[in-house]
Amino acid sequence: MAGTDRARDTSGLGPAPVVVLARTQLGENVGTAARAMLNFGLTELRLAAPACGWPNTKALAAASGATLVLNRLTLHDDVTSATADLHYLLATSARPRELIKPVLTMREAAAEMRARVAAGARVGLLFGPERTGLSNDDLLLADAIVTVPLNPGYSSLNVAQAVLLAGYEWFQADSDTPARIDPAAAALRATKGELADLLEHLVTELDAVDFFRTPDRRTSMVRALKATFGRSGPLASEVQLLRGVVKALAGGGHRGRRAGRS
Amino acid sequence: MAGTDRARDTSGLGPAPVVVLARTQLGENVGTAARAMLNFGLTELRLAAPACGWPNTKALAAASGATLVLNRLTLHDDVTSATADLHYLLATSARPRELIKPVLTMREAAAEMRARVAAGARVGLLFGPERTGLSNDDLLLADAIVTVPLNPGYSSLNVAQAVLLAGYEWFQADSDTPARIDPAAAALRATKGELADLLEHLVTELDAVDFFRTPDRRTSMVRALKATFGRSGPLASEVQLLRGVVKALAGGGHRGRRAGRS
Repeated sequence: MAGTDRARDTSGLGPAPVVVLARTQLGENVGTAARAMLNFGLTELRLAAPACGWPNTKALAAASGATLVLNRLTLHDDVTSATADLHYLLATSARPRELIKPVLTMREAAAEMRARVAAGARVGLLFGPERTGLSNDDLLLADAIVTVPLNPGYSSLNVAQAVLLAGYEWFQADSDTPARIDPAAAALRATKGELADLLEHLVTELDAVDFFRTPDRRTSMVRALKATFGRSGPLASEVQLLRGVVKALAGGGHRGRRAGRS
Repeated sequence: MAGTDRARDTSGLGPAPVVVLARTQLGENVGTAARAMLNFGLTELRLAAPACGWPNTKALAAASGATLVLNRLTLHDDVTSATADLHYLLATSARPRELIKPVLTMREAAAEMRARVAAGARVGLLFGPERTGLSNDDLLLADAIVTVPLNPGYSSLNVAQAVLLAGYEWFQADSDTPARIDPAAAALRATKGELADLLEHLVTELDAVDFFRTPDRRTSMVRALKATFGRSGPLASEVQLLRGVVKALAGGGHRGRRAGRS
């Protein structure tokens, strides 16, 4: 039996669901599942009657250093004993059978698991064997079924990919990573005044070479130039760079190569 | 050059981002990336200077039938030419460098890509080689950087796993799958009246064997029984089954085995 303590905090990321792999056929999938888990702070893996046998050298090779998970892995005779200490069990299935069970998306499942773990429950996620998926008897043990919405024309997630998506949603459900960070949004951007100075400098030099030709063209083209530089939201350092470019093209460059052309 | 048409609808799921793999080292990862893509309706894969060479037998073996993606794959000399026809490019990076670029989560990136594709833009997602990730020159080509929030103690997503998560978020961002379906929530559940009849039947039989002993115990235990059956929200068919169970235990079963005990 897996000890109760193992379902508790081990990764420094707080208590998390256990992952139960039923009758897994390929050792590689145990290894890649372990790797997927640890990326998202899931550390307790249980194998129920693994068809691939255990220990398994292919699993070790595929785990990419997720040895914390493999070292703590526990072996069980069947799914019933692998889930005996759990309060809430979700079973992943690509094809929900005619069972009277709630069917959740992976995202909804993550929210449900977060709530139950926060309330002190021991929660598990059950994944079936590669070829056949979970049996009806396995599914009957679960409180709800989890499915991943997939392309109806090609639905071929392997068990480690399903574990990856479950871990991903579990982790994102409590992640405080901002959806978007824009480092240029703050103080590094040029001020409106710096932009206006650049535009004035540019227009002065363009006037000097009669770039605009007529007052009407001048009005519309200056507007277009303002829009162009305004939209890109340049940094203060970039505005300085552009002023150097204008100066150099207008013949004021320190090498003075183009002086004769203005 | 990949043709413009290829960035358009091909899967029946509407226009979608292209996936660009830069200098990929392992053919397996091209195959598993193709498989991950097709699950989520992404069909256009471009290889920029693949270190693994192309065609690649390991890629074919790992693609699990995602041949639609491999057959349409295009080869490019470098990232610049592989992305030349795109209007908007997101680069995935585990370690955002000191670049002045917006940094998006994968979920935010999916929303951004959906909006841009809907507006008619050709959008791409760029993934780097296994060992080193994207170079600074690659990242400079991108409009924004995408990162996946990971366990800070173990961050080891491979390129195909990153493609899987990107495809997953892309697909979920437009999925109309309800977060939760509860087939038992509707007409299959027992009505309050069926539940009350079951309770009355049960209490009558328990009274007959003096199960409750005192009126006080009777009151509290009947309440507990009501709570027990009420919380499980049984189906109408399950209530019928339980009435049969009560009848059988109380000696009214058709085999009459326990008749002598009441």
